[in-house]
Amino acid sequence: MTRSFDQDLPAIEAAAVAYLTAFVRADIDAVMETYADDGVLMAPGIAAVAGKDNLRPTYVAVWQAVTFDMAYKIHEVLQTSEDWGLVRSSTEGTETNNATGEVTPAQYQELFAIRKSDDGKWRLARYCTCKIS
Amino acid sequence: MTRSFDQDLPAIEAAAVAYLTAFVRADIDAVMETYADDGVLMAPGIAAVAGKDNLRPTYVAVWQAVTFDMAYKIHEVLQTSEDWGLVRSSTEGTETNNATGEVTPAQYQELFAIRKSDDGKWRLARYCTCKIS
Repeated sequence: MTRSFDQDLPAIEAAAVAYLTAFVRADIDAVMETYADDGVLMAPGIAAVAGKDNLRPTYVAVWQAVTFDMAYKIHEVLQTSEDWGLVRSSTEGTETNNATGEVTPAQYQELFAIRKSDDGKWRLARYCTCKIS
Repeated sequence: MTRSFDQDLPAIEAAAVAYLTAFVRADIDAVMETYADDGVLMAPGIAAVAGKDNLRPTYVAVWQAVTFDMAYKIHEVLQTSEDWGLVRSSTEGTETNNATGEVTPAQYQELFAIRKSDDGKWRLARYCTCKIS
C-alpha cells in the first residue's frame, strides 16, 4: 500500500534550509516566503502561532529580544506523498540577549512538515522546534 | 494535484492520544507500542532519539526524574496521504521533581508525524515536543 516518493527531496530540503538561513539573518520577508499561508510555528515559550498575519509579528518580536548566530545540520529529509515531506534538523551556535548583550551557547532541533503549494513551491506547513541546551 | 484523505483521521488521532495518555501513566510498554520501529523523539533537553532500542531507556530515565500530571488537547488532525498524518496537540498540568518533590506548572505543545505501519496500525514516526512554560 505504501508508495515511495523521492523526486522532490531536493526541493523539500531546500525549503527547510531557506527557512533556517533566513531565520539566522532575521530576514522577515524571506522567512515569511518560506511559510505556507496557513503555516504553524510551535516554538519554546510561545503557544502555537498560526497563519502569516500572526507569524510575522512573532518573528519580529523574537529577533528584537535575541540575536541568533546558529549553524544548521539537516539530519533527514523524507517525501511522504506527492505534496508532503518531513525534514529533521538541528541548529547550534549562540544567542545574544539584545537587552543585556549576554551571549550564551544554544542548541535546538527542528521538525518540519513541508507541503507543496499550488504554485509548485514547497513551503513550511507545520514546524516545531525545541531547545536541546 | 493535491488529493484529499480523511478516512483514517480517527486512527491518526487515536495514535496521538494513545501516546499522550500512556506518557502520563509512565507506561513504558504502552508508549513503545505507539512508536514505529524507526520512530524518532525530539524533546527539550535531549538530542533526537531514534529507534525503539534507544527510546525505551530515554523514557525510563525521564520518568525516573519527573512525574507528569498533564491533560492534553488535540488541536489539529491531518491525513496527508494514504499512510501519513499529522497531529498537533498541547498538554498542560504539573511536573513533580522526583528527587526534591517540587511541583511546578508546565505547558508543552506537540507535533506528531504518524505513519500507517505494515500491520495497518498508525504509529508515531517522528515526534517533536517543546515547552511553552
